[in-house]
Amino acid sequence: MSILVVGSVAFDSVKTPFGKVEEILGGSGSYFSVAASFFSPVRLVAVVGEDFPKEGLELFRKFSIDIRGLKQVPGKTFRWVGEYGSSLNEAKTLNTELNVFENFRPQIPRSYQHSDYVFLGNIDPVLQAKVLSQVEKPKFVACDTMNYWIESKPEELKKTLSMVDILIINDSEVRMLTKEYNLTKASRIIAEWGPKILVVKKGEYGVAMYNSGSIFAAPAFPLEELSDPTGAGDSFAGGFVGFLAKSGCIDDESLRKAVIYGSVMASFSVEEFSLNRLKSVTLSEIQDRCFQFKQLTHFEVENSF
Amino acid sequence: MSILVVGSVAFDSVKTPFGKVEEILGGSGSYFSVAASFFSPVRLVAVVGEDFPKEGLELFRKFSIDIRGLKQVPGKTFRWVGEYGSSLNEAKTLNTELNVFENFRPQIPRSYQHSDYVFLGNIDPVLQAKVLSQVEKPKFVACDTMNYWIESKPEELKKTLSMVDILIINDSEVRMLTKEYNLTKASRIIAEWGPKILVVKKGEYGVAMYNSGSIFAAPAFPLEELSDPTGAGDSFAGGFVGFLAKSGCIDDESLRKAVIYGSVMASFSVEEFSLNRLKSVTLSEIQDRCFQFKQLTHFEVENSF
Repeated sequence: MSILVVGSVAFDSVKTPFGKVEEILGGSGSYFSVAASFFSPVRLVAVVGEDFPKEGLELFRKFSIDIRGLKQVPGKTFRWVGEYGSSLNEAKTLNTELNVFENFRPQIPRSYQHSDYVFLGNIDPVLQAKVLSQVEKPKFVACDTMNYWIESKPEELKKTLSMVDILIINDSEVRMLTKEYNLTKASRIIAEWGPKILVVKKGEYGVAMYNSGSIFAAPAFPLEELSDPTGAGDSFAGGFVGFLAKSGCIDDESLRKAVIYGSVMASFSVEEFSLNRLKSVTLSEIQDRCFQFKQLTHFEVENSF
Repeated sequence: MSILVVGSVAFDSVKTPFGKVEEILGGSGSYFSVAASFFSPVRLVAVVGEDFPKEGLELFRKFSIDIRGLKQVPGKTFRWVGEYGSSLNEAKTLNTELNVFENFRPQIPRSYQHSDYVFLGNIDPVLQAKVLSQVEKPKFVACDTMNYWIESKPEELKKTLSMVDILIINDSEVRMLTKEYNLTKASRIIAEWGPKILVVKKGEYGVAMYNSGSIFAAPAFPLEELSDPTGAGDSFAGGFVGFLAKSGCIDDESLRKAVIYGSVMASFSVEEFSLNRLKSVTLSEIQDRCFQFKQLTHFEVENSF
């Protein structure tokens, strides 16, 4: 089933301890779309400027991503400049140029109106709500956000969350949003606002999912070589929502598998800069890493010790 | 099979966001011994002062801990004063009084000389080596250490490590010890020094174990109510070594189970101050939590998606 995603398409300039790139393709919409496309058809809603190259559009087409909702308008494409220290856990933003993103008013093409799965990438919660209002009864809605919106638009964010089924954010954002340090307790606060399922991203420490009393914890896949954590969260969301849309099922078992596929896509994404690794990964590599995940976490418990 | 442990027995004064206690029983030797005693007989080597109360000795006896190696000498028992912030991840040491621990020269009673399993708690690596030299060919040796010894006695520590099979330390200590940020790579450096198995404790994020190329990752058990993280690492080590000694086997499957039993003991330990929860926990509660761990981490992967 098709997934509608709204998010950013950007040029990133990134420096990590392992290298440096200038103005390469990035943005939440890009990472999500490519990661999700391995599982399900994707419809992208985003905006780029006149400077956006044909190769970018061709990349999306290569992954069969529907870009009828990707608007090219006068002006420059959104730019982000960031840097990571040796822990790679948190980006330091050095510069943000919103450019055409500043006046982005997402318009859903008629052909997108019936989308069963929706992912609201990390943009202004007011715009997230506007996107949702244009989609007819989606089967489920997943959503990301960030500290900036939690601080600057808390009420607008809560209004959007009231229409969301799954919130996918990192642990510090959960704590900032709920003012509760304990994640299990925080998940109940968030469930009252709307999202019954909370997926907490913890970077190198993996993911925890809270689903009406059931908790699932998965480590991050241990990599020896990482290049660039940019886009890890959106690649996770792409694998996660992509798998759920493919399975057509949102029970606890499918959600757990979705966390693993999301973690696998994130682990590939960080191996190289930009979307380079996602561009080259194969279905059998994805499946192999899922089995390695099983091996990584497997143990037996007997009835007595 | 019996486990010989050398470590501290102390009076701790601890403040956490959830309460405050003064001069209660603590120390690596205490937490380890009580946690391990649920699985295997324990022989404790440590020192206390004249002020150590009978109730302390009775507690160890209640858990069938052999305390012929626990020396009571003139002077005051080791004291530690610490505080935790809201993250509970790291203690701030406010005061340390070594007292009788300052001149501690561990002497292994003759009845301890044949101990198949040895745990070297976090004490001076020179003393750890002295303990080892008094034990006849143990089946395996596990060891803890801390930033203080890594910085002040790196050569002595490496000499001790050359006689150790399993090193159990936290992630920041692994990075400080090896000067390598990537834990998989760090595990290979440590294996060259001696310990073929590295168990990395990550506090609220769980545990990773590196065993000759095989990696196992386990989350921490998600608790809603925590009181005091003091002793979590030693309770983990107690459950871990205790289970291995009971199973009599050190293959990868047993090591993975041992990580889970260790994590279970740590999770009980932090529920209350001091050893209070370990004093009341039952075998069936331990076993139940192991099954909850299985539920927490379980997922299925099919051959295709």
